[in-house]
Amino acid sequence: MWGIIATWRMAKEGLELAEEILKNQGDAGDAIEKAIQAVEDFPYYKSVGYGGLPNEDMEVELDAAYMNGNTLSVGAVGAIRDFANPISIARRLSHEKVNCILVSEGAEKFAHKEGFERKNMLTERAKIHYHNRMKETVQELKPYIGHDTVGMVCLDETGKMTAATSTSGLFMKKKGRIGDSPVIGSGFYVDSQIGGASATGLGEDLMKGCISYTIVQLMEMGMHPQKACEKAVFDLDLKLKQRRGQAGDLSVIAMNCKGEFGVATNIDGFSFVVCLPHQQPTVYLVKRQGNHCVYQPASQKWLDDYMQTRMAPLKRK
Amino acid sequence: MWGIIATWRMAKEGLELAEEILKNQGDAGDAIEKAIQAVEDFPYYKSVGYGGLPNEDMEVELDAAYMNGNTLSVGAVGAIRDFANPISIARRLSHEKVNCILVSEGAEKFAHKEGFERKNMLTERAKIHYHNRMKETVQELKPYIGHDTVGMVCLDETGKMTAATSTSGLFMKKKGRIGDSPVIGSGFYVDSQIGGASATGLGEDLMKGCISYTIVQLMEMGMHPQKACEKAVFDLDLKLKQRRGQAGDLSVIAMNCKGEFGVATNIDGFSFVVCLPHQQPTVYLVKRQGNHCVYQPASQKWLDDYMQTRMAPLKRK
Repeated sequence: MWGIIATWRMAKEGLELAEEILKNQGDAGDAIEKAIQAVEDFPYYKSVGYGGLPNEDMEVELDAAYMNGNTLSVGAVGAIRDFANPISIARRLSHEKVNCILVSEGAEKFAHKEGFERKNMLTERAKIHYHNRMKETVQELKPYIGHDTVGMVCLDETGKMTAATSTSGLFMKKKGRIGDSPVIGSGFYVDSQIGGASATGLGEDLMKGCISYTIVQLMEMGMHPQKACEKAVFDLDLKLKQRRGQAGDLSVIAMNCKGEFGVATNIDGFSFVVCLPHQQPTVYLVKRQGNHCVYQPASQKWLDDYMQTRMAPLKRK
Repeated sequence: MWGIIATWRMAKEGLELAEEILKNQGDAGDAIEKAIQAVEDFPYYKSVGYGGLPNEDMEVELDAAYMNGNTLSVGAVGAIRDFANPISIARRLSHEKVNCILVSEGAEKFAHKEGFERKNMLTERAKIHYHNRMKETVQELKPYIGHDTVGMVCLDETGKMTAATSTSGLFMKKKGRIGDSPVIGSGFYVDSQIGGASATGLGEDLMKGCISYTIVQLMEMGMHPQKACEKAVFDLDLKLKQRRGQAGDLSVIAMNCKGEFGVATNIDGFSFVVCLPHQQPTVYLVKRQGNHCVYQPASQKWLDDYMQTRMAPLKRK
């Protein structure tokens, strides 16, 4: 058995690359890294890698993490600038015994010494978004804009599982802000003997429930990934509303060591992509119905509209 | 009922300040902040705040976190330089809806704008430690040296609970390295309806089991804090040995919403301090016995030796 699941439509082309690796008995580490790289490299996704939207200083600061479910090794970078593939730096760090999470300038120094590719990650398009946003009436920062993290869980033929995330985080975030993506247990968690999970949404709220770790624990107790995702999302959503009056966007994906998967969300419009031996990478749209989530394949029209919107010409106001 | 518990002997003077606040119906947020500040301010503790040992570039980079168990709000700073009290910056960030975890230069920029006290955190004594270490034969970095995080859990008369951590992290760490201390679920977690926990030891290993969150979950299932701490530490210790051949130092403290407390460790020499209505701040030493941990009050000789060692004259080699 093998499989890979990822948050958001944007992961589709990456999962096509991962499929090639996994169906040829490739490694879950290689597959997930390649898949995330593809998302990082695509300039029209505004929330991951190249083309990601900048912070309030017009710097693109990136977070990424990699976890090996066999050894529980973790590597992560936070608020790193101007490297092409944060996911690869995170994976490299996961081989270290200490100093596995590096942020900001220190992360850049490490990456430079290790020979990772430097790249100005701020695109012309991202600059236009920045300038247009600055021209809008100064309002309270709307947290969700451009806040879609790519997160993946992968299982290979040997039973090895991995999890990984990559994001440019909140548009107009404060310099140095890190969200849930590089935070183990919140943005991601995986244990090859159980399964893995990854989250996207408002990092500051996802963290309050250590949501990815919670899902893995529920799967350990024998819960199906779908049920585990629903329970984790709706329990946290309720708790946040009770304690704080409101809950941010919470969306999750999970896969267990048998290749069964699950998803849940408390918003409209969450999409995910999954690929299994009998199923090429397929985009699904998720809907909440009471305390359950249902999903169905995205229509061709939805898929066409998606890409058209992303690549539409953009004018500076 | 009220109470406060903290990792390591170094927390004692801080807990004396917290006691004054708590026994006069003060707030668990104020009490824990004041207690952590005292540890940060004391120049002879090599692993927290002023006097903390520097990274490989001879910069003192500090991590700290604060969590409010009523609202689950979290604030944290990672790899911040030259501010006197990282804990207070972390607490300030916990009031934000987004941008609650800031690292490095971005964290410094925020702290400066907010008017926090700038202070050169590198002491002459820390410089001597740095130079002496550099003169030693270049060996593999020994992760534990000077790696004692102060972590606390606090309960006030209103039932509000808080958790907080502060550390200068691993001596000779890579620039930008963050450990478990600013990572929710790993270094700390608290929910006023259940209890809280905090961890110290090898951050990279504590994180692999989201150890503080695990302890809170075990207490939620009805487990006594002592039993919860033991289970969390020994389960993770075993899992790390099975998966990786070895486990780093893991030590934890916890308190539930009834003021019952627990501690556990997989090392020799872990100490903690606890203060309750019927008990002024008392230092205990912890020993592992099979799958249990026992503790007894530190002798006056131990306490005297402790301070003498910390403050002994230091010569540059």
